[in-house]
Amino acid sequence: MAAGYIGKQRWVIAEGYIPPDNTEIKDPTLRSHETACMLNAGDIDANVVLTVFFVDREPAGPYRVIVPARRTVHLRLDKLTEPEAIPRATPYASLIEADVPIVVQHTRLDSRQDALALMSTIAFGAD
Amino acid sequence: MAAGYIGKQRWVIAEGYIPPDNTEIKDPTLRSHETACMLNAGDIDANVVLTVFFVDREPAGPYRVIVPARRTVHLRLDKLTEPEAIPRATPYASLIEADVPIVVQHTRLDSRQDALALMSTIAFGAD
Amino acid sequence: MAAGYIGKQRWVIAEGYIPPDNTEIKDPTLRSHETACMLNAGDIDANVVLTVFFVDREPAGPYRVIVPARRTVHLRLDKLTEPEAIPRATPYASLIEADVPIVVQHTRLDSRQDALALMSTIAFGAD
Amino acid sequence: MAAGYIGKQRWVIAEGYIPPDNTEIKDPTLRSHETACMLNAGDIDANVVLTVFFVDREPAGPYRVIVPARRTVHLRLDKLTEPEAIPRATPYASLIEADVPIVVQHTRLDSRQDALALMSTIAFGAD
Repeated sequence: MAAGYIGKQRWVIAEGYIPPDNTEIKDPTLRSHETACMLNAGDIDANVVLTVFFVDREPAGPYRVIVPARRTVHLRLDKLTEPEAIPRATPYASLIEADVPIVVQHTRLDSRQDALALMSTIAFGAD
Repeated sequence: MAAGYIGKQRWVIAEGYIPPDNTEIKDPTLRSHETACMLNAGDIDANVVLTVFFVDREPAGPYRVIVPARRTVHLRLDKLTEPEAIPRATPYASLIEADVPIVVQHTRLDSRQDALALMSTIAFGAD
Repeated sequence: MAAGYIGKQRWVIAEGYIPPDNTEIKDPTLRSHETACMLNAGDIDANVVLTVFFVDREPAGPYRVIVPARRTVHLRLDKLTEPEAIPRATPYASLIEADVPIVVQHTRLDSRQDALALMSTIAFGAD
Repeated sequence: MAAGYIGKQRWVIAEGYIPPDNTEIKDPTLRSHETACMLNAGDIDANVVLTVFFVDREPAGPYRVIVPARRTVHLRLDKLTEPEAIPRATPYASLIEADVPIVVQHTRLDSRQDALALMSTIAFGAD
């Protein structure tokens, strides 16, 4: 169980798009959303900073998150508020920087139509 | 056919979420589940250890699996029982360590709604 | 916010297939399409050239796109026109070359049936 | 347009599962299938050999495919016949070896239920 560090300190999710909200769906886990899933397998908390890039304006951020040692955080990108919310129905991209190695995977659940759609990919990691 | 070793010895699946069970679906292959697909293309059995990380508790494990030489194992994460089951509807992440190189791909089938959704990604591999 | 360069200068999307158009769907964001999502996290504009490969003819291109500094471009592959449109319902693949590092992710939305399907993956990046 | 070689010579798709056939769907492009999408961006034809691994038997193969210079092949894994067909509804994995660098992406279309589901990922590439 003594898992050491694994991962990279800089990650990019080039695809970002939070579909319009569909609050008529009763189960909140089935409403459209995006998640940045992060694992810190090491023994020191990870201080993570997100920067969000857009098509036609300067980046937003920094968004600050802690991924504690030996924990995962499945960060709901549609729920970020500080310093500002990511607008829905707007293309964006994310840069995720951590002070220790982590691993990042990106997932979207899109339930604009009757049946939900899912997509997921490992993010791009760089040293 | 003399395929040698290919892959990495440490892999991370940062996204993990087993949807609530839907036993009303008769075909068990269509019920919501997650799979860690592993290939051992080499000539020696791989001893694999999984550690499962959560948001708010210490990791679970070790889960021990053998991927025999020249075989694939599509491990159903929702069916693990030893040392404990992974709870459903709970965010988690997985670290997969093997004593020889393997390749790991992660897939989820989500059939909470009428039509199933699929997602898959190569895991993050490290030396 | 002083994000430096991150990524690779050459990327491949080996899967490409733009489903037949479904203009009967009123919301254009829900019609079948493919996107090459690109992030330029650096401080100099990226000059990007796409080459499109087919099964049975010479490649098409170059398609020229600028990804401005500190911006993302979610390029709709089904909307390219110069030097020629990518035909629908036709397998293809893309090579994306940039003069500074960028990150590329590929996404398809397929709404040929009543409920949309999504897929996404990081592209293959090379130096 | 003078695209040189890009990619790796060995690739693994650890996830493989061809859903049961659904010939009642009239449009054959909407029936469940799996594809290994390969791009050869170089100027020499690629001789590609696939080996298919199973859970409980020795590997099948070699399956031989040529990916011509400057062409893509979207290989339908459910249509292979020589030396043997890959059985449906059976977990498998694939090793893809080429004599020049190529890029491989894996896609499944699953239409067992009323609405199709899609998944795709870059394969694992090794030198």
